[in-house]
Amino acid sequence: MTLEGKMLIGQQAVPGQRDAIHAINPATNAQLEPAYFGGTREDVEQACELAWAAFDGYRETALEARAGFLETIADEIEALGDALIERAVAESGLPQARIQGERGRTCNQLRLFAKTVRAGEWLDVRVDPAMPERQPMPRADLRQRHIALGPVAVFGASNFPLAFSVAGGDTASALAAGCPVIVKAHSAHPGTSELVGRAIQAAVKRCALPEGVFSLIFGSGREVGQALVANPRIKAAGFTGSRSGGLALWHIAQSRPEPIPFYAEMSSINPVFPLPAALEARGANLGEAFVGSLNMGAGQFCTNPGLVVAIKGPALDDFIAAARQAVETSASQTMLTPGIHQAYENGMQQLANSDKAREIARGRQGDGPNQCQTALFVTSASDFLGDESLQAEVFGSTSLVVECSDAEELQRVAERLEGQLTATLLMDDADLDAARALLPVLERKAGRILVNGWPTGVEVCDTMVHGGPFPATSDVRTTSVGTAAILRFLRPVCYQGLPDALLPEALKASNPLALKRLVDGQREA
Amino acid sequence: MTLEGKMLIGQQAVPGQRDAIHAINPATNAQLEPAYFGGTREDVEQACELAWAAFDGYRETALEARAGFLETIADEIEALGDALIERAVAESGLPQARIQGERGRTCNQLRLFAKTVRAGEWLDVRVDPAMPERQPMPRADLRQRHIALGPVAVFGASNFPLAFSVAGGDTASALAAGCPVIVKAHSAHPGTSELVGRAIQAAVKRCALPEGVFSLIFGSGREVGQALVANPRIKAAGFTGSRSGGLALWHIAQSRPEPIPFYAEMSSINPVFPLPAALEARGANLGEAFVGSLNMGAGQFCTNPGLVVAIKGPALDDFIAAARQAVETSASQTMLTPGIHQAYENGMQQLANSDKAREIARGRQGDGPNQCQTALFVTSASDFLGDESLQAEVFGSTSLVVECSDAEELQRVAERLEGQLTATLLMDDADLDAARALLPVLERKAGRILVNGWPTGVEVCDTMVHGGPFPATSDVRTTSVGTAAILRFLRPVCYQGLPDALLPEALKASNPLALKRLVDGQREA
Repeated sequence: MTLEGKMLIGQQAVPGQRDAIHAINPATNAQLEPAYFGGTREDVEQACELAWAAFDGYRETALEARAGFLETIADEIEALGDALIERAVAESGLPQARIQGERGRTCNQLRLFAKTVRAGEWLDVRVDPAMPERQPMPRADLRQRHIALGPVAVFGASNFPLAFSVAGGDTASALAAGCPVIVKAHSAHPGTSELVGRAIQAAVKRCALPEGVFSLIFGSGREVGQALVANPRIKAAGFTGSRSGGLALWHIAQSRPEPIPFYAEMSSINPVFPLPAALEARGANLGEAFVGSLNMGAGQFCTNPGLVVAIKGPALDDFIAAARQAVETSASQTMLTPGIHQAYENGMQQLANSDKAREIARGRQGDGPNQCQTALFVTSASDFLGDESLQAEVFGSTSLVVECSDAEELQRVAERLEGQLTATLLMDDADLDAARALLPVLERKAGRILVNGWPTGVEVCDTMVHGGPFPATSDVRTTSVGTAAILRFLRPVCYQGLPDALLPEALKASNPLALKRLVDGQREA
Repeated sequence: MTLEGKMLIGQQAVPGQRDAIHAINPATNAQLEPAYFGGTREDVEQACELAWAAFDGYRETALEARAGFLETIADEIEALGDALIERAVAESGLPQARIQGERGRTCNQLRLFAKTVRAGEWLDVRVDPAMPERQPMPRADLRQRHIALGPVAVFGASNFPLAFSVAGGDTASALAAGCPVIVKAHSAHPGTSELVGRAIQAAVKRCALPEGVFSLIFGSGREVGQALVANPRIKAAGFTGSRSGGLALWHIAQSRPEPIPFYAEMSSINPVFPLPAALEARGANLGEAFVGSLNMGAGQFCTNPGLVVAIKGPALDDFIAAARQAVETSASQTMLTPGIHQAYENGMQQLANSDKAREIARGRQGDGPNQCQTALFVTSASDFLGDESLQAEVFGSTSLVVECSDAEELQRVAERLEGQLTATLLMDDADLDAARALLPVLERKAGRILVNGWPTGVEVCDTMVHGGPFPATSDVRTTSVGTAAILRFLRPVCYQGLPDALLPEALKASNPLALKRLVDGQREA
């Protein structure tokens, strides 16, 4: 498939009219063809009108048809073959094996949502049968189901050019919920976006769905992104990216005449707490393994362990010594974009210049452009508690160890943390009491709590929570990864006294979808 | 029990220091004793600190203990006996039978939430067992449950001094979720608030819960209300009231360093659509019954039918004629407060002065103060479509009939409506196609759709949705009435690789709470 450099609005390929966007191969700084000219407000408007026209039909598609659509998207993505892998590698600087794995995750994710759609639990069907004889007032027949919110705007993320971009988790969960999707492509990987967008476009056609179910727009965040979130046809949005970018769009979503849910996954430093007995037993091993997690994807994971909090002493010294050695032998890695690399250098330099943080080690310097040099810093708990800027995320493989004088100070550091995607305990049996004391704090701080694992590596499954208190996300009640992500794009509707002929399939008396309903307070078996 | 005129902060009774608040008996304009002196920011801070201290313990109470607490509150409210009824009647001007019924609803609501707490579905427990042999990567043991958001601020509503005030739906659902609650009492019924607050306070003590689980503060919205929503210890808020009041607090909630969910139930005109065959068959009956619904509670229900949309012609004329007669013979009713009465008079006068609305009938004028005079107006669809101000809620028993020239124009009126709590179809079998055409529009506009019923009268049950798109509420994803209201105060947390000894009860391998979990994608029977 030849890249055309065009937006996809419904079934059309539309050339943009604004400034040209060129992907840059971050490994070489070479500019990649073709140019993607940015869209206008009118393009956004057209995509939104198409999505709106598609909405009422798409949200009532049969579960099997909708599941089949998601599976068809996965098939079409796989059918892109090596062209997709090559383009994504060139645009992201990520290794081929990583991109291949991410394609697998993306397609599995779509197929998992297909399974979720078929199971129908997300409809949350409830029935309170009529009680015509009840005194003093009869009760009408009452039924509830969930319906889709409306067209959803999705902002592609730079760090997962497949799994959290055009056909990523936000898109998959919104489509699963019955919402048409308009993706604002990330300017770092327009070619990858076009390829995946064409796969979705083809799936829409193959499944004979209304064309407005999917559109893909290129352009600046300022013009296209803001117009998209402000458009009255858009009823929710999903975003993964920086705190400043997320908050700017979030403010637009809240300032509309009709405010809408805006799901921004923004910043997290993912604290790791090696507890005393674990440190004592295997401090050096943990220190080495920690750097392995820190270096994954050049530290460009949302769940990268940017903070270690532990009680100081010989065992922590062993951890730090092993980590130092691992950092010093860390090869440099290509970062996603020149902008991300520059921000990383600035963040690392700020720590290096701080009189509150002591540099322990740096990794090898790379030869090419945009190389991420691993770095490790240490600070004291009192300095950390006194300086909020030490909690700022440095997006890349830099981490900070906070040395606490005792368990009480460690607890205070935990209480002072901002909201996080994850919090990790490294523990042995003898640490159980310490872990029990920390757990309530971590539950309040993070969406996912790990024991003896590393936060990088997010399983796509029913139980995953990739979310957490602000500023990790803008909405603590949700997850952006895993099947529960579908709930973000649904709302309950109650139907009172409707004749069976007027009821939607999910609510008809004969229960044609064979759902396990909550009837009169009892869950059907 | 003698009223003391004091705030309840934990187990203490605390005198306020700001301006005195006196309840007014709206039937007589007489001032009621005692004075309730308003609280300060320091009082708010103290209540928030107590709530915070109580939070970790209260959110982990055993299901049975928490359910028992809710039932104890209901028992304590009933134990207040006639004193509560008399005070609520005096402060609200509502008839005794209505207040007695509302007490029943309030206590039933608490007991229904107790049942919901015991059933434990709200925990939404999910398990993805470990797959240590999986290739290329093993899967850790992953579990998910819902936990409480944190301390919740509740704003008592004027129009349900029991069922949506101190121990009303917001409080019951937040306590059920495991959130401590701080209520800002509505200044229209401080004595009722104190009585119910003391009942909750007594229940906290009887159940040996941490005192910060409940506090009750009096004072101005500007000082106390805003301080409450802005306090960093508060993690969500529930509000029922005016659009301007709701939006002002909502903006504070969104402008905090850490924005929080703010559930405001604000304004709705609850359109009723009498369809042609139903009008033809029983236009006069429907017109009379409509006024019965319009007059309920002096029109001071959130679900009051403030709009009728139908196709003009002789059948609609019959409806209007019968409604006119019913309005003209409507007795006046005492409104809740002088302020609400004044706003009603202004709103009705604005319609009377409008050159777009024609006055059809007014009800009887009352003798006493604060009397609500029922009123009915008619407008054309073209005028309605051209003037958004005709959609403004007039809180009280005034309604507007919109005459459409045909089904297509009726559809356009439906499409132009703002978000609503309810939408009602009055239909016969022959109206089925017309109803089918309207249903998708109404699903997008309202949280509850009724057929051949009246929107006033909100059943407290599993299926109820008392919610809807903005401006009916600030969060379309939720309901403030019914058991699903508990979901507003919860968030998911994922536990990865935790040893069984560290897992919360709900997630332990032996499933001690006997929950029907989602295990590996399958719901347990």
